[in-house]
Parts: sequence; C-alpha cells; structure tokens
Amino acid sequence: MTAGQPQYPTGLGTSDATTIRLLGHDLANDLMGQVGFGELAFWLAAQRRPSAGEVRLFETVLVALADHGFTPTAIAARLTLLSAPESIQGAMAAGLLGGGSRFLGVTEDTGRFLDEVITAAGDPLPATTEEWDALAGKALAERKATKRFVPGLGHPVHKERDPRTPVIIRIAREEGVYGPHLALFEALGRMAPEILGRTLPLNGAGVCGAALADLRLPTELLRGFALLARAAGLLGHLAEELRRPIAADIYHSVDRNARYVAGDAVG
Amino acid sequence: MTAGQPQYPTGLGTSDATTIRLLGHDLANDLMGQVGFGELAFWLAAQRRPSAGEVRLFETVLVALADHGFTPTAIAARLTLLSAPESIQGAMAAGLLGGGSRFLGVTEDTGRFLDEVITAAGDPLPATTEEWDALAGKALAERKATKRFVPGLGHPVHKERDPRTPVIIRIAREEGVYGPHLALFEALGRMAPEILGRTLPLNGAGVCGAALADLRLPTELLRGFALLARAAGLLGHLAEELRRPIAADIYHSVDRNARYVAGDAVG
Amino acid sequence: MTAGQPQYPTGLGTSDATTIRLLGHDLANDLMGQVGFGELAFWLAAQRRPSAGEVRLFETVLVALADHGFTPTAIAARLTLLSAPESIQGAMAAGLLGGGSRFLGVTEDTGRFLDEVITAAGDPLPATTEEWDALAGKALAERKATKRFVPGLGHPVHKERDPRTPVIIRIAREEGVYGPHLALFEALGRMAPEILGRTLPLNGAGVCGAALADLRLPTELLRGFALLARAAGLLGHLAEELRRPIAADIYHSVDRNARYVAGDAVG
Amino acid sequence: MTAGQPQYPTGLGTSDATTIRLLGHDLANDLMGQVGFGELAFWLAAQRRPSAGEVRLFETVLVALADHGFTPTAIAARLTLLSAPESIQGAMAAGLLGGGSRFLGVTEDTGRFLDEVITAAGDPLPATTEEWDALAGKALAERKATKRFVPGLGHPVHKERDPRTPVIIRIAREEGVYGPHLALFEALGRMAPEILGRTLPLNGAGVCGAALADLRLPTELLRGFALLARAAGLLGHLAEELRRPIAADIYHSVDRNARYVAGDAVG
Repeated sequence: MTAGQPQYPTGLGTSDATTIRLLGHDLANDLMGQVGFGELAFWLAAQRRPSAGEVRLFETVLVALADHGFTPTAIAARLTLLSAPESIQGAMAAGLLGGGSRFLGVTEDTGRFLDEVITAAGDPLPATTEEWDALAGKALAERKATKRFVPGLGHPVHKERDPRTPVIIRIAREEGVYGPHLALFEALGRMAPEILGRTLPLNGAGVCGAALADLRLPTELLRGFALLARAAGLLGHLAEELRRPIAADIYHSVDRNARYVAGDAVG
Repeated sequence: MTAGQPQYPTGLGTSDATTIRLLGHDLANDLMGQVGFGELAFWLAAQRRPSAGEVRLFETVLVALADHGFTPTAIAARLTLLSAPESIQGAMAAGLLGGGSRFLGVTEDTGRFLDEVITAAGDPLPATTEEWDALAGKALAERKATKRFVPGLGHPVHKERDPRTPVIIRIAREEGVYGPHLALFEALGRMAPEILGRTLPLNGAGVCGAALADLRLPTELLRGFALLARAAGLLGHLAEELRRPIAADIYHSVDRNARYVAGDAVG
Repeated sequence: MTAGQPQYPTGLGTSDATTIRLLGHDLANDLMGQVGFGELAFWLAAQRRPSAGEVRLFETVLVALADHGFTPTAIAARLTLLSAPESIQGAMAAGLLGGGSRFLGVTEDTGRFLDEVITAAGDPLPATTEEWDALAGKALAERKATKRFVPGLGHPVHKERDPRTPVIIRIAREEGVYGPHLALFEALGRMAPEILGRTLPLNGAGVCGAALADLRLPTELLRGFALLARAAGLLGHLAEELRRPIAADIYHSVDRNARYVAGDAVG
Repeated sequence: MTAGQPQYPTGLGTSDATTIRLLGHDLANDLMGQVGFGELAFWLAAQRRPSAGEVRLFETVLVALADHGFTPTAIAARLTLLSAPESIQGAMAAGLLGGGSRFLGVTEDTGRFLDEVITAAGDPLPATTEEWDALAGKALAERKATKRFVPGLGHPVHKERDPRTPVIIRIAREEGVYGPHLALFEALGRMAPEILGRTLPLNGAGVCGAALADLRLPTELLRGFALLARAAGLLGHLAEELRRPIAADIYHSVDRNARYVAGDAVG
C-alpha cells in the first residue's frame, strides 16, 4: 500500500497467492461445503453469521419470493435473452431491473412501515396481544386519516388469505425468531376490519418483509433480498426459455397486434 | 383462455386465488420451510429435484463463486448505488452486467470445453486413470497445436495451487457425484507438465464448471449459476457500502487524477 | 388481427413488406436525411415535431449534459466493458444505471420544482421581472421554512457561476423559446441572496431542466433526456477505453488498497 | 496529483471551478449551441470532429436505426417501466440490454465483414465496378463454401428491397463520403444472384454498418451507435407508455395464457 493513497476497508473478501479469505475466514477450509448458500448470503449482507433457526426462516423467505410465474420481470428477461442470447448476464440484469416499487415493493415497504411504527412507539414494546392490537389500531387510524394505504395488507389475487403468510409465521415461531415486526403485522391484520372496515389478508410478500426485519436485517436492504430470491427464479425462466422458448411468441403477439394511432402531441 | 391466442407453457410457477404452485408443487405447503434456497435454485434451473448430495456440491460451488473482493463487478455496483441510491435493483444489475467473459467466463468455458472433449470421445468413457490421462493428453495437444489456451488451467494469482479446487473435488467424491468432467479436469492437470511444458494449477472457478457439468446442469447456463452466486456477493457489497461507503472515494481518486490528453483521432 | 386479442396502439413505428413508417411518416422518403437525430429524439418523445428553434435549444441541452468526465457512471461503464468486452450493450446499460438521483437528478428535480411553483401560482403568470421575483421569493421562503433545499441552485464545483447557464438562457431567448420556467429560474437566482442569505449560482444541469420544461417536454421524462445525452458521452468513454484503457488501472488501484477490517455486525 | 498514484488520461471532459472543457474545447463558449448533438456524439466516439457531410450521413444512420416499433427491446423497456416506474434509467437500460446479436447485430456484423474482406484484399482497392464485383463474388463464394451466411444480405420482412438502403447510399454519394465499404456492399448485392442463386435485398441495418465503416468509425463500436440511436427510440416508447400504457396489457396477455406443463427434467 502506497502512502497517500486511499484505503478501502472491507469485511468481505480478500486473497493472496495461497489463501482466499471471506468474512474473516478461510474460504476453502472453513466455508466451502460447511456453510450453505443461503447462510452465506445472510452472513455477507449482515456481516454476522446467522443461527440455524435464522437460516431456516431466511431461506423460507427466499423460497417464497423466488418466482411468481410470468411476471413482467420474467417476461423482460426472456425477451432480452431472445434478443441477446450471447449475454445471459444481460438477460438476468434486465429481469432484475423490473424489481422495483410496483411488484417488488411490498416486502420492503412493509418492513419499513412496521419498523417506523415500532421505532416511534419506543420502549417498552407491547407485551400482550391487546397491547399489540392497540399499537396496530393506532397506526391504522393514522394511515387512514392521512389517506395512505397500509403496506402489506391485501393482495390483488389472494383476496381471502395469502397461503404463504401462515407458513412464515409458523416457521418464525418454530425457530424462535418471531419478533416485534411479525407481532405488529399480525395485529394489523386483526385490527383492519375494525379500523379500515375491511378484511384484508396479510400479504405473503409483506410478511416476508416483517420476517426479514425480525431477522434484524437492515430495512434499506430488504428489496435486495427479494432480488436475490428473484435471481434464482429468473435463472429458472432463462433455463426454460432455452429449452421451451416462448419469448418470440410474446414478441410476435405484440408486434402483430400493433396498430398505428397518431399520438396526442405533448406540449 | 381465448381461442386463437398463443399459449405459454411453463413448468415453473402458476397461481390462483387460493394456491400458489411452483414446479408442480404447492409452494406454501410443500416447499416453504422444507426446501432450501440453493436446492430450489437447482430445481428451478434443471426442473429436476436434486438429491441431498447434489445440493451439497451445488451450494459449495455457489459459496466458492459468491465473492472475490473488490472485483470490477463489485466496484461498478457500489458506484451505481452511490449515484442512484434509490434503486438497489439498478446497482445489483450494474454489478451483474460485469459478469461476462473476462472475469466470469472460466466456469462456463471450462464446463463447455470438458463437455466437448467428452462428447467427441464418445462411448465408452475412459474407465481408468491412464485412460483419462490419454484423453486429456490428446485434448491438450490439440489445443496446443491450434495455439488456443486451455480453459480452467492456471490462475493469475494462485500460481501453485488454487485452494478451492481440492475442496470441490473432495466434496464431489464424498457425495458420490464425481463424474467424467471432474475426472477429465484432474487428468488435464496431471498431463499439463508433459504436454504444455508447464505446471498449471486447476483453477477454482474452472473446477466449479466441471462440478456443475457433473451435476448435469446445462452448459449454456453455467454462467448463470456464477451470476446467482455473485448476486449474493453483490448484496454483501451493497450492504457494506451503505454502512461503510467507499464508492465516493473511488470516484474521487479517479476524477482527481484525470489528466486531459488529446486523443488520437480515429479514422 | 384476431378478434378477442388485445390491440396495441402506437404513434411510433410500424412497417410492412415495402414501407417503414415512423411517427406517421415514411421513414426512408420523409425522415432519413431530412430530420436530424436530435430533432427525431424530440419528436419521438413528444409526438410533436419541434420547430427549428426548439431543436436548437434541445440539442444545446443535450450537448451540455452529454459528458462530465470520469463520473461514477463513466467509471462503471468502463469497468463493465473491461469485464464483459463482448457486450457493449451491457457496458452502456451499466453506465446509464448510474443516472439516478444523486448525479443526474438536478435536471429533473429542477424542472419539476419550477413546474410545481408555476402550476400552483395559477393564472395569470407573472409578466414583469418584479412579479417573477415576488413569486420566486415566496417559493424560496416556503422551501426555507420547511428546511428543504432548492433544486437547481448551487453547484459543488462552480461556486460562483456555472458557465453553461448563461448560454442556455441566451439561446432560449435567441430562438424565442424562453418561457416561464426559465423566467422563474432566473428570478430564483436573483432572490436567493435576500431570502436564503447566500449567493447561489444557477446550476447548469438545473437550467437544462428549466429549458426542457419550457420546450413543453413532460416533467416525468426529463431524466430520460439527460440519459439520452449521457448515452453519447458513455459511447465516447467506451470508445476511449478501447483505445486507451484505464479500467484495469482503476480496478487494481482499488483491489491493491483493500484492507480487511471486520465489519460491524448488523442486527 | 499525488506522486505514486495512477494517472488517468482522457481526451473527453475535464472541469474546474470556472470552466468545463470537453474534447479540448470550452463547452459553454465553443460547443453549446454551435455543435449539434449528433455531431458531438460522432466527435466523442472518434475524437475527431466530423465534417458537415459526415454529420449528415451519420445522423441519417441514427434516424434509420432509432425505432422499429414493438421490438423485444421496446417491450422489455415498457414492462420494466411498469414494474419500476421510479427508475426511468432502469427501463432504458433494460431496453438497451436487448440490443444484442439477434436484432441489433446486423449493423456491426456487416461492418466487420466488409472490413475483413477489404483488409484481406489489400492494396490497391478495386477501382471499377467490375473489380468490386470480382472481389464481392470471391467473398460470397468463400462464405458459401464454408456454409456461412452473409451479413447484411436479406431481410425477414423486406424481401424485395429494404427502403432504407437506397437512401443511405444516395446521401453518402451526395455528401462525398461514399467509400469502399458501401461499394463492396452494393457489389455483394449485384453478385448474390449469380453466386448464391438468390436475389437478396441489401439490408437497411446492414447498409448502416457499411456507412458507419465508411465514416471510418471503429468496427468494435458499431453496435454502440445502434444503441445510441435506439436510446432515442426507447425514450419515445417510455414517453408513450406514460401517456398510453400497454405494458400491463402485454403482461396480462401472457400471464392469463400461462399453462402449467411439467418440464422435461434436464440432466
């Protein structure tokens, strides 16, 4: 290292001629074959090695978020692979770029919302169901008064019950990592009929946000975990596109039904 | 479904109001909490559920490839997060776009090369070390004669021995998934001194390609698995950038040392 | 077109076996060689053909925004080309992904801010310098009271005067397209010392936002024009990287100065 | 600049507190309002200021390549804007990532092919139509013998004549920039019936590659110019999507017609 040059601290990876180190450990001797991929992903993001129970909940979340069929994300990835078959990294990146606010926002928005309510509530946290219900009711009323919707409540398709939600909650309890975010989230679901006048199911992607927050993963990163999960789903779509291609059909179905209509001029 | 409309077959995900199905299974009841994330990633890509041994080798490969410190990929991701902090999907995509031939090509190139040699050799495959050595020697001689380098042999830093390689080989044997690609790869390493006149270590990213090929994952997808692994590494870098930012320092170190020099005109 | 299928209206491009039409015109006979690239870009975005004066101001804006040296954007693009030289579209995309709020936000933020103030002021618009100053003073005072900074005022480097600003204003006047956004922007500059207690130069990227708004281009698209301009700049960087590469030096300067420091665990 | 630090030479942009310089010129005083956007794009890429005639041909090429309706590229960009409306740079990047070999390759492949034939032919270049025909005939015969197709000949839609081609050729002649690549390209078209046994129209995107090569722009960059052109087209699509959205319809038309079919397991 030369004097006067900037230095770049990192707690992640470094290597020399004989050793590759990652997170302060010897990659080959300590990590490979001994640490799972999900476990490593958690560890890389939190720079804290998760317990077995935390890993199980974390991987359950990733599995829940990995693939949702022909999302705009998956379609864009497949179209990009069709156009640029030589660059699988381009197709994967194009797919991930759709991981924004509209379809991948729930996980992050829910985690943040829960976190804000809990932080504002201060100490001590609610200890009983009634206390959680009170906090939830207050939060719902505030959102309603300011005409803002509540992240994590409701789902466009699963209008009664999102099948993913009870599984996340059960596993969190089983693994002893059920915490304030999940508690508040359940309370929001209980109080919604009374405060909002509607029964709204607890959104499965939303409960994932609550779970990640209870795993004490940073809220600014919640969307990143959804993206990691989605990367696995996209790889599945790209693999399928290589074997049973549909992107050309999608392209042609749009192109064939294009109809020229003079636009309204802007300005 | 409307008559006359194209239909889009998929073996991945579908859902209705009450159920989310993935790979023909009920996501909530059969997969979440019961299938690991690495296992699911394999299953999504191969549309075949891997055995426990296959999962172990697969996750070892992903762990081996997840992060290599301040690669151009990681630097680009961090610079993008600095410039567009509101879009973590942009930063992750920018990082993955560097996952191309120069730094992420070895895994894929090695897998493909081994596959070509094995396919060209036809049946029956070599059965003894001597037979593998003969096939390897022949392949090396052909590459040498046509002045092409051999993917997977050598490493710019680990000039004696890449520490990741023996671990991959050991785990493949332990899990009973050691196959022709790994066998050929080891033979190439044994024969290199004789045919190429140099000792070349078996590259760790290359042995990952051999392992993925022995897991019977498609060669066109090998880079995709490296990208999935790298997505976890990038998330770690982005997490670290949020806590201990260095991207602005990198930017300034370049900008401050820029020097105007008239370019050679092209054309 | 099949009955029951969705139809996709577009005012942009369609083609058949003998003709390619764009914006309702015959591309080959009416547009090629007769419409400039900047003119076409405006026309495609606004679906309205700009006058010669509008084109001149528009192209001046694009020229102003095309390149700012070794921005994080340019560095990321060059690093990506280094890593994936086979995909120039990946390198360009990676560069554009840095076109987010921090470095490319001023143009859009300024345009939006000016538009909000003008819209809120209603009819009739100010007609004299004094009236514009009054509106500007009021807007500045409101921002100050709510502790929000004013987009477009100030610059980290050009602390006295941004050299691009007077040129944009002059050309807008010359071409008869100087309008309310530019008028308000100049008034903000005049009133800043009095209301904010500081002299703040009118930011060059900000005045570009005012100019684009006075060209009646949609505010949601302002960043898109900056990205189009930046695409030309990035192409210049990629061309230069191919001839006089520096990305490997940047990569090594970071990698060489990496220092392992255990991270603060999160959570 | 600190001793021992790397230095980064650039012929593009630098700036200090009072001046912004680009390509060795004062941006505000010498370039803005005096240099067109297309002209600047050429200059940035070639680091050579083009003549007026070169600019006209160059901009004609960009106009020819800017938009082709609902390409997979445009569809992917629109789907990404739907999913991540907060990131126009993500939508534009996703669209550009489709600018790969299959739909954007012709321009580059044709330019490279012509360049290889011309380079191999050596000096002196053909001077008469007959000599060009002879060189073209030879090149076609070689491609035919090695069963490789000829870039730039033929078009999936415009089977008789691509309407863009004669315009490019005419403008190149008008501006005095018609050169060996265009001459060879026309000769290939004349000789195709005799050598290949088929009449193949000269592809419009292919003639753009010939024109860019005759403008002495580097062949490794040809796809980059197509991408710059396409960036303008994509901005038009994103603008139209904001006003007359269709991406949700495209998404639903795929999602609604998804049909679960167990995949063939791979491996």
